[in-house]
Amino acid sequence: MSNRTLVEVLKEKKMTIAVAESLTGGLLASSIVDVPGASEVFLGGIVSYSHSAKAELLGVDQEFLSSHGAVNSQVAQEMCSGARKLFHSDIAISTTGVAGPGSSEGKPAGTVFVGIAMPEGIEVFSLHLEGSRQEIRDLAVNEALTLTLARLSPDE
Amino acid sequence: MSNRTLVEVLKEKKMTIAVAESLTGGLLASSIVDVPGASEVFLGGIVSYSHSAKAELLGVDQEFLSSHGAVNSQVAQEMCSGARKLFHSDIAISTTGVAGPGSSEGKPAGTVFVGIAMPEGIEVFSLHLEGSRQEIRDLAVNEALTLTLARLSPDE
Repeated sequence: MSNRTLVEVLKEKKMTIAVAESLTGGLLASSIVDVPGASEVFLGGIVSYSHSAKAELLGVDQEFLSSHGAVNSQVAQEMCSGARKLFHSDIAISTTGVAGPGSSEGKPAGTVFVGIAMPEGIEVFSLHLEGSRQEIRDLAVNEALTLTLARLSPDE
Repeated sequence: MSNRTLVEVLKEKKMTIAVAESLTGGLLASSIVDVPGASEVFLGGIVSYSHSAKAELLGVDQEFLSSHGAVNSQVAQEMCSGARKLFHSDIAISTTGVAGPGSSEGKPAGTVFVGIAMPEGIEVFSLHLEGSRQEIRDLAVNEALTLTLARLSPDE
């Protein structure tokens, strides 16, 4: 139940959050909204499934997307940075990766990057997850929540 | 499996789709992305949970939101219209309502508005759903998919 804990910790710290999702496609936002009272801390999200949505809405570099694709650390970084600015939130989480089935952009299913933008800077985590399309997306959501919690409560 | 059928019908018709979600909070986008190959037709979505996200990103009238709230037909209409423009999609679906527990804006849990913007115009559907917070959100997603399918394939 990382989603409940995250909402509680954010309420305590009076911090707000937004998300920018590619492979998780709305599942991360939905997981936060599952928690009653989430509206106190959750401002919103972008499901930027197409390259043009990543570029136009989140400000991801269009030329970089065309030459390097969307599954890499730089795009995760630009996505969470863009979401944080767009929603004026304290924190923003991004996800980009390959849910499968099969590889994409020459990267195997389960290749996932999670970006976390906070007032003190941005960190990107590179993950290699195993499972079906649905399992990889669920694992990516759980990792994104857990990594954000760890950054918020480093001592716990 | 309305999500699979919707993706198939959109592929056949070579039409694209985007979403703007309030109470469903990413679940509608996620349900479409569940279908392998959805990226051919799904451009992206906005989870506009806060009033300011609805106004700034989707162009919903800020004064109207302040005076009438977000759970009404006009906001559903402006949300899907805004998403269709933002993503340059053929179709856009919006959801706004009260997931509960308890009422909001003086409206009981289960009050849901679904907007569908298509090339030939916008329709808004007013729904009254029963269930827990999770059930109401799941039902709203299913209704949104089914209503869109009905508009796309009126003879079936």
